[in-house]
Amino acid sequence: PARADIALIGLAVMGQNLILNMNDHGFVVCVFNRTVSKVDDFLANEAKGTKVVGARSLQEMVSKLKKPRRVMLLVKAGRAVDDFIEKLVPLLDTGDIIIDGGNSEYRDTTRRCQNLKAKGILFVGSGVSGGEEGARYGPSLMPGGNKEAWPHIKTIFQAIAAKVGTGEPCCDWVGDEGAGHFVKMVHNGIEYGDMQLICEAYHLMKDVLGMRHEEMAQAFEEWNKTELDSFLIEITANILKFRDTDGKELLPKIRDSAGQKGTGKWTAVSALEYGMPVTLIGEAVFARCLSSLKEERVQASKTLKGPQQVQLEGSKESFLEDIRKIISYAQGFMLLRQAATEFGWTLNYGAIALMWRGGCIIRSVFLGKIKDAFERNPALQNLLLDDFFKSAVDNCQDSWRRVVSTGVQAGIPMPCFTTALSFYDGYRHEVLPANLIQAQRDYFGAHTYELLDKPGEFIHTNWTGHGGSVSSSAYNA
Amino acid sequence: PARADIALIGLAVMGQNLILNMNDHGFVVCVFNRTVSKVDDFLANEAKGTKVVGARSLQEMVSKLKKPRRVMLLVKAGRAVDDFIEKLVPLLDTGDIIIDGGNSEYRDTTRRCQNLKAKGILFVGSGVSGGEEGARYGPSLMPGGNKEAWPHIKTIFQAIAAKVGTGEPCCDWVGDEGAGHFVKMVHNGIEYGDMQLICEAYHLMKDVLGMRHEEMAQAFEEWNKTELDSFLIEITANILKFRDTDGKELLPKIRDSAGQKGTGKWTAVSALEYGMPVTLIGEAVFARCLSSLKEERVQASKTLKGPQQVQLEGSKESFLEDIRKIISYAQGFMLLRQAATEFGWTLNYGAIALMWRGGCIIRSVFLGKIKDAFERNPALQNLLLDDFFKSAVDNCQDSWRRVVSTGVQAGIPMPCFTTALSFYDGYRHEVLPANLIQAQRDYFGAHTYELLDKPGEFIHTNWTGHGGSVSSSAYNA
Repeated sequence: PARADIALIGLAVMGQNLILNMNDHGFVVCVFNRTVSKVDDFLANEAKGTKVVGARSLQEMVSKLKKPRRVMLLVKAGRAVDDFIEKLVPLLDTGDIIIDGGNSEYRDTTRRCQNLKAKGILFVGSGVSGGEEGARYGPSLMPGGNKEAWPHIKTIFQAIAAKVGTGEPCCDWVGDEGAGHFVKMVHNGIEYGDMQLICEAYHLMKDVLGMRHEEMAQAFEEWNKTELDSFLIEITANILKFRDTDGKELLPKIRDSAGQKGTGKWTAVSALEYGMPVTLIGEAVFARCLSSLKEERVQASKTLKGPQQVQLEGSKESFLEDIRKIISYAQGFMLLRQAATEFGWTLNYGAIALMWRGGCIIRSVFLGKIKDAFERNPALQNLLLDDFFKSAVDNCQDSWRRVVSTGVQAGIPMPCFTTALSFYDGYRHEVLPANLIQAQRDYFGAHTYELLDKPGEFIHTNWTGHGGSVSSSAYNA
Repeated sequence: PARADIALIGLAVMGQNLILNMNDHGFVVCVFNRTVSKVDDFLANEAKGTKVVGARSLQEMVSKLKKPRRVMLLVKAGRAVDDFIEKLVPLLDTGDIIIDGGNSEYRDTTRRCQNLKAKGILFVGSGVSGGEEGARYGPSLMPGGNKEAWPHIKTIFQAIAAKVGTGEPCCDWVGDEGAGHFVKMVHNGIEYGDMQLICEAYHLMKDVLGMRHEEMAQAFEEWNKTELDSFLIEITANILKFRDTDGKELLPKIRDSAGQKGTGKWTAVSALEYGMPVTLIGEAVFARCLSSLKEERVQASKTLKGPQQVQLEGSKESFLEDIRKIISYAQGFMLLRQAATEFGWTLNYGAIALMWRGGCIIRSVFLGKIKDAFERNPALQNLLLDDFFKSAVDNCQDSWRRVVSTGVQAGIPMPCFTTALSFYDGYRHEVLPANLIQAQRDYFGAHTYELLDKPGEFIHTNWTGHGGSVSSSAYNA
């Protein structure tokens, strides 16, 4: 009998937890997995005593679904998603819905959305964040794609999503085509930046301030008592305190080679493609690359010297937390704004801030401030220009500069804190030295330049007297 | 009569100058241009009194070429290259050669190389650097592709290339497929980094040290009297001194929005794709992006505050020049090494350093040191590990740190100098704080981690006690 509200394919940790979450909220979920035995295991164990039903084939799964049928995929991004879509289409009817809850590349989602629209199937690409905990007890959901699907999935999505404030769900319709996955990609990019900044603070506390793990844990817990309360700081405190079975701290035993699965990299690549200086995310991705060159670093550490004497100024203030958020989010929203322009998407920035307010990895009370900023001024060009953020940076920039120069003198790599500061200082400079770049490009490549008092007019100067007056077209510098 | 040694298509400044350069060395060049009138203009003016011959159609052009026919394209990268190749193929015979001297994307070059090989045409993608001056009097040439073509073009290429030392040409065979254009791409990425670093030094000298243009020009000229002699420093000094027709300095009148045509961006994207922390180039590209947000910066400059008081320490030493090269090149060669692995190319790093030693935009006496380093140890893993560079960094790192922290305190954006330092400090750290990232990823995403004493073994810890023990497969953080 067709009594299931939704089908979910893919029984890895995220899938399992989303199913149990849906079940908690009274929805009947029909589950399927490529390796069918996993279905039986799941029903016999994690899903024991729930209303979850299983299917041993896609046909059986589809037959158990109410119409319009809702099928959610939580499989590895890429080929696997296309394979399942291909198998599902012949089994579905016009108006049925396929939801991809994996971390698909936003371009793939746009492509799938368009192809399936032509076949009468409503496709949704939804970002899902919060990790296994979030999936189980309330994730942040960022659905985008064919908007006709929204009325049919809204109830389920907003029911299982995290709630904040007076019960507002951390889930709303993001926008057309790949917008949901693009927003999730930027979320992950910001997550990369946040994590790297926390690592840099940890490095500084550990090696310059000489703090013990217990002290550092306390410091992070202190930060979280303020309005800066955030998930990553919370788990960092827990991680710092966590003891291994032998009673010793676990963290120092963990290999310092950070893995990555692509979305941070995609954010940095998009930033380059769309010409937005999202430097913090870029540095965070590169920092992971450098960390993974472990053998090379071990070798280098034996020969490359650091600074002679280490200054011991420093700061345990929570300003690190301020900076982390402000620059990171300012850049993230710059990229979202640019993408909206590129693709003609209408993005509701306040709603996006609310979706990130809870449930997801970067969740923080702080996101509420961003929502407020965009409510005050929906056309806000840059978060840094909002009064709240302007004064926040203003209040902490002295200690920010002090800590960065301490790190510089002490030889502690702080790529994200320093790039955030460079960005802030660059952004607030009416005049940057790029006029020299333009002069150089015209000098060696005849690329022409603009005069400040004649914008729009491109001039070539024969700097050497024998370079000729032909301006370049084929040569690219 | 078939008497021309080579044909050149595309009469923009680079094309014109390469033609005159070839003519100077006794080669007969047949020229063609899509807009045929340009051929007549060129013959009547720049090429007047030379042995250059013109063609009013591709058929006529081909008919005037000796066999094997050599046809060089200097047209805009992209569609135009494919269009000309398409039109040329039916006019050519097996063993004839097509050379693309534009700034094509290395993947396009690999594709064209493979397609044309199947048709019996030998394709070469050659990086050409040196701008209009270089093209005219001796560029750096970086040819790669179908090696069977090399014996037929070597004489011409090495004759017109820049010469260094005892007359060694700055041109040698780079490698298979798109290797020539990849090396040129990295060259341009390094060029982006070099230019940005010079801008940051200029900014610091101008606004912190309060130096006048004349003084700055002198400082740069001083640097160039040392072994650090380089083209970009030379032209920077000339630019700083250059007076406009009204007798005033021209540089301050130039709009500070840097343009870019892609190759720097490609280098940064490749760095992200192949996981190499080429941070300096990444920041240089982002710095150009930020500079082009001129209106936004003007607005921001009215509201965003900088530091209260500006320290006036600082340094006119040439160490800036040291750093600039060392980190920039160390990272550039890291990327080349990775690409060689990815594509199975055999790259001669010493030869590449020699090709960059003269002719090109990044040319510098300094490249000789890199050539030496790779001759001392062809398997050198990283330039920073070579004794010469090791001690060079060692000698200047104190002033490097001092200047960066001065910039930080003074509010001067120095994204490239700071990221170079972060990279150096990160690279020389045996242990980085990335263990915390791994712990966080396992905490929220069950991504597992390795223990330092159990490499290769991936462990998941149930940090919260209620996260479950299933490790992640679908979720990507």
